[in-house]
Amino acid sequence: MPQMSEPGSHDEHADPHAHDPIFVAHRGGKMQIVSTVSLKTREDLSIAYTPGVADVCRAIAVNPALVEDYTWVSHTVAVVTDGSAVLGLGNIGPRAAMPVMEGKAVLFKAFANVDAVPICLDTQDVEGIIDVVTALAPSFGGINLEDISAPRCFEIERRLDEALPIPVFHDDQHGTAVVVLAALRNAARVLDRKLDDLRVVVVGAGAAGVAVTKMLIAGGVEAGQIIVCDSRGTLHPDRSLTGAKAELAGLTNASGLAGTVTDALRGADVLIGVSGGEIPEHAVAGMAPESIVFALANPTPEVHPDVASRYAAIVATGRSDFPNQINNVLAFPGIFRGALDARATTITENMKIAAAEAIAAVAATDLRADSIVPSALDPRVAKAVAAAVSEAAHRDGVCRP
Amino acid sequence: MPQMSEPGSHDEHADPHAHDPIFVAHRGGKMQIVSTVSLKTREDLSIAYTPGVADVCRAIAVNPALVEDYTWVSHTVAVVTDGSAVLGLGNIGPRAAMPVMEGKAVLFKAFANVDAVPICLDTQDVEGIIDVVTALAPSFGGINLEDISAPRCFEIERRLDEALPIPVFHDDQHGTAVVVLAALRNAARVLDRKLDDLRVVVVGAGAAGVAVTKMLIAGGVEAGQIIVCDSRGTLHPDRSLTGAKAELAGLTNASGLAGTVTDALRGADVLIGVSGGEIPEHAVAGMAPESIVFALANPTPEVHPDVASRYAAIVATGRSDFPNQINNVLAFPGIFRGALDARATTITENMKIAAAEAIAAVAATDLRADSIVPSALDPRVAKAVAAAVSEAAHRDGVCRP
Repeated sequence: MPQMSEPGSHDEHADPHAHDPIFVAHRGGKMQIVSTVSLKTREDLSIAYTPGVADVCRAIAVNPALVEDYTWVSHTVAVVTDGSAVLGLGNIGPRAAMPVMEGKAVLFKAFANVDAVPICLDTQDVEGIIDVVTALAPSFGGINLEDISAPRCFEIERRLDEALPIPVFHDDQHGTAVVVLAALRNAARVLDRKLDDLRVVVVGAGAAGVAVTKMLIAGGVEAGQIIVCDSRGTLHPDRSLTGAKAELAGLTNASGLAGTVTDALRGADVLIGVSGGEIPEHAVAGMAPESIVFALANPTPEVHPDVASRYAAIVATGRSDFPNQINNVLAFPGIFRGALDARATTITENMKIAAAEAIAAVAATDLRADSIVPSALDPRVAKAVAAAVSEAAHRDGVCRP
Repeated sequence: MPQMSEPGSHDEHADPHAHDPIFVAHRGGKMQIVSTVSLKTREDLSIAYTPGVADVCRAIAVNPALVEDYTWVSHTVAVVTDGSAVLGLGNIGPRAAMPVMEGKAVLFKAFANVDAVPICLDTQDVEGIIDVVTALAPSFGGINLEDISAPRCFEIERRLDEALPIPVFHDDQHGTAVVVLAALRNAARVLDRKLDDLRVVVVGAGAAGVAVTKMLIAGGVEAGQIIVCDSRGTLHPDRSLTGAKAELAGLTNASGLAGTVTDALRGADVLIGVSGGEIPEHAVAGMAPESIVFALANPTPEVHPDVASRYAAIVATGRSDFPNQINNVLAFPGIFRGALDARATTITENMKIAAAEAIAAVAATDLRADSIVPSALDPRVAKAVAAAVSEAAHRDGVCRP
């Protein structure tokens, strides 16, 4: 293969990052395409390209399902963002989002052999995003939505999932929710508690908070025993709320508590922070004995794990430098691998619960208070998740023939 | 890397093509993604993904041009089709088009180390296609439009090229035109003729016919000495024509000849067939002595090369099993490589002419009547084309800083 130029060889003199090791690692991007067919002879060309390829095109024109057998579509996912809510950086736009989407793509490949293509869109209009992704869909076996801000992300995901015959999955919502459910199951196991016996406070009512709450309910936590807080305090039916928050206010908080995060945490068993805000030490001190704290904001947890550990029996964060890292990479590669393997048309609640159970089961082989989830690098995880998700898809009857 | 499932392993019993060698070669598709960064340790993850990646995102948010240094965008092209005019198969739609787009993508990689992503769109609406490609543009360094039917392709290309800061190139038009110009230059050289002295008939007024005609004029053929024919005969100002055909009728056919292809060919020096129709032997017999016939329809040339050789001094086709194969693969990989290397914002007429000259120059090292273009596999071609195109882009002042 000719190497005609080094990527990004221009203007290095103008780039203050040129020698920063992180930037050096990202230079020229983190991925490339390789051909899996030989292109060395005329015969090769006549098979991979014209005239041979026309036979394959004709066959797919007659039977469109063959696109899954004779193209890369069956093992390919688009990682789609509009750059509106990238990591904790906010609305930085499609170009600045690209390094994250490439990172996601290479994780898909490394952990589950899924070929993922980063697609960063130059529109933040809900209808525009839906139209573009709908138009792109024949090119991919699944759509991973990423870093799209709430509440827009809810409608975009719902409408695309309804419209498309392939799985659509907003990882910031469901990836996080799946790993949180897995971690909470194992935390409860360590403490010999039952999920339906726990009082849970979810701090944050954005994409992750909404999905975590719904996933916990689907996974066995009593809806009425959950209290969700946004920046103004607890969600309850007397507040004037719309959309996903109104829905959660109706489902959760059976006692109708109106108050602050500190009020909600008084006597609670579980704190799940997905807000990026700060939670004061005295609020954590007010929780029930033997409590569970997941402070997932990254890079700065809502409460520092050393502080939380003074009061809680089990502490988890999103950080790799503390025990119990709640990392989406435990979920999304295996979930898509399983959905693609099963030729699933959607990702059902059961498929997500199956993923959470599979993640929890891997950690259960060596369960301790400081080891409730597997390492992000544990190669068993994606395989176990893929198998469980594929099986659940078949059980739910959502597979294409 | 885990291999959790073989692509396309379902339902082989139902697939009548499962053992056809062409289908076997296409099974599971022809390409995959590979990571170019290590993802083995926690440290690796913290560089390629969070938290390290956030530094790169922040830098691009401040200076969007850095996306070309720190993502794969600078070496990546989208191969975009709506499946409306695929090879000679017609409007077979986006799914059936995918094997061709993958083929194109692997040729981009093999010949010019360009990472190309096939994008097959589920819309054939002109505005819809323009909107989708505009939205996708931040994800790619260039847009190769492919197999989009005429006359829609003209407007789509023109408007995207105006709207986007990256090169947009409809290969069915310009790739073909560049290689035809290269071939005609060398054919004229073999016969010791000058381009501005040749009477040329272009049979076919679709995407390729229009682009070939314009390219020949830009490359030195006298516009008035060209006659373009569509299925109703010669284009001339007395016909009621619109769009690109009306434009060509105004530029070409200085004698105002109204008639059939046979009438047009009488005494002509050059026949360029890009129609897919049939041209009768007696029409070729009526051409001037020492004539040049390019019968480019694939897989069935407008006139069989053995028949054309009875009358013409030089014969070329689109087929690999006859001498003088006019193959777009001589042009598009090097043209995009050169445009990407130069960070060109568009592909100018001069860049295309430079590409044609570079292709002609490679063949000129061993020029014969049956060797007017290089072999499609000649590794010198893409390098020479890329260098010439990049230089022309700089000369034309169309490069981003």
